Amino acid sequence: MATVDIREVGPRDGLQSEDPVAVEDRVRLIEALMDAGVCHVEACSFVSPKAVPAMAGAAEVMASVDRRPGVTFTALVPNVKGASMALEASVDELTVTISASPAYNEKNVRMTVEESLVQVAEICELAAAVPVDAVVSCAFGSPYEGDTDPAAAHDLGRRLLDAGASALTYADTTGVGTPRRVEDLLAWTGTGVGLHLHDTRGTALVNAYAALRAGVRRFDTAVGGLGGSPFAADAGGNLATEDLVHLLDDLGEESGVDLGRLLEASALVGSLVGHPVPSKVAAAGPRGRRAS
Amino acid sequence: MATVDIREVGPRDGLQSEDPVAVEDRVRLIEALMDAGVCHVEACSFVSPKAVPAMAGAAEVMASVDRRPGVTFTALVPNVKGASMALEASVDELTVTISASPAYNEKNVRMTVEESLVQVAEICELAAAVPVDAVVSCAFGSPYEGDTDPAAAHDLGRRLLDAGASALTYADTTGVGTPRRVEDLLAWTGTGVGLHLHDTRGTALVNAYAALRAGVRRFDTAVGGLGGSPFAADAGGNLATEDLVHLLDDLGEESGVDLGRLLEASALVGSLVGHPVPSKVAAAGPRGRRAS
Repeated sequence: MATVDIREVGPRDGLQSEDPVAVEDRVRLIEALMDAGVCHVEACSFVSPKAVPAMAGAAEVMASVDRRPGVTFTALVPNVKGASMALEASVDELTVTISASPAYNEKNVRMTVEESLVQVAEICELAAAVPVDAVVSCAFGSPYEGDTDPAAAHDLGRRLLDAGASALTYADTTGVGTPRRVEDLLAWTGTGVGLHLHDTRGTALVNAYAALRAGVRRFDTAVGGLGGSPFAADAGGNLATEDLVHLLDDLGEESGVDLGRLLEASALVGSLVGHPVPSKVAAAGPRGRRAS
Repeated sequence: MATVDIREVGPRDGLQSEDPVAVEDRVRLIEALMDAGVCHVEACSFVSPKAVPAMAGAAEVMASVDRRPGVTFTALVPNVKGASMALEASVDELTVTISASPAYNEKNVRMTVEESLVQVAEICELAAAVPVDAVVSCAFGSPYEGDTDPAAAHDLGRRLLDAGASALTYADTTGVGTPRRVEDLLAWTGTGVGLHLHDTRGTALVNAYAALRAGVRRFDTAVGGLGGSPFAADAGGNLATEDLVHLLDDLGEESGVDLGRLLEASALVGSLVGHPVPSKVAAAGPRGRRAS
């Protein structure tokens, strides 16, 4: 029984800033991740292929992938049109993003935060029984306004729940979070939230550790530590799934993910994107490795 | 007043596996580090230049460098001959290494652990009033024997104190430590020890954080996160000084090191070794950086 829910966002956040990977290869990656025990995966985003070319073919990904029982398939949707397409593709969960940084929100989706909130409400109404996880980006700060006040991030979260969101995830989009700031935010939000951490400044794992200690049980991670925002130049990669699993295994926490099989998926994604992945566990191998 | 003692090992551990850097440039690096507020620096090692070409000219480094008041200059010595040379060069502190992994010890210094202990005693006797910090390598494990029993690492530490060492540092030479294992070791040793962490598996910062929480106040770090052992292929870089200072600043801990000036030293070391340094804080800039 898993004690920690890993939502694997590699097929979406991990690939969105890379050169486009073919639909069949993205499907192959998702299946390799499921082979490793991943049971929650953000498979794609229903965005304009003009805006994010690497995410073209979301419906094809959902139609082709083996929908294994017990696996939750999530799609990121930027608007009602995207939500409608995602629901047509029978996803199990939607994610929507809204930023605690007004400037980032306007650059990212060309809407004010208020406009985004209205849109989230419309998406939630459309989604009906399909859960909508609202991801609060720049939850710790942004390159525009600097530090985010945790009370303000929490307030935005409450408004998202009021708008119909079924769950909240707080994202450290540009990697400005720290263990202390994670604790500060959790003091407002409680620990029943997800965290989506980026490793821009090498702090993703220590932030996850601080959150785990505080009681957080939901994390977004990307295989290989790939990732970054097409709209934030220095977003940096996501917390690598293998780095978190490596830590969880040692802590005796159960994620359901087999590290050895996961490293096979990590090698696959490295070959698909054509460059080494950032994860150091992927490069060095897990801690049990012996000299040959 | 510093609450955390950072011993900067970049000029030694950071450079020892790189192509040799000229003495004058190593001196320039040490002075840039002191300009940033570093007041404890492992400046060189008195080893055979045949064994470690990058460390040739240790006596010249010590003779050329500006010996600023309040700065402790440390040198690594592998044997009595090296200790004698280091003392002649008026270092303030010696470091000696001995491994909790018998196989690593034999590969590293071609001696059994017992033989190394005898030699440490001889070095301590020679050093007299100059403090000798004994660094227990592979304190968490090695690629040869796997995990190190924390009780055994602690026992080796006690024998080193009996041999005359004035302080102990436990080293995660191949990056197999984890927060849990750091806590396990500290439960044996107490927190009055130093930690020397490598980032082979991306865990150096989270391990430092766990140690800080437990009460450890002494850390070895290398500017830029350079480093690695010439005798352990997958040793990986050291915990980057800028990554630790970035964390300490946010925690309200005082190291005496100015992050902005430190990043200048980091840029210098990158230019000296001719490749980007591993530190992500060095690459992305500190968390306060704004979009221009």
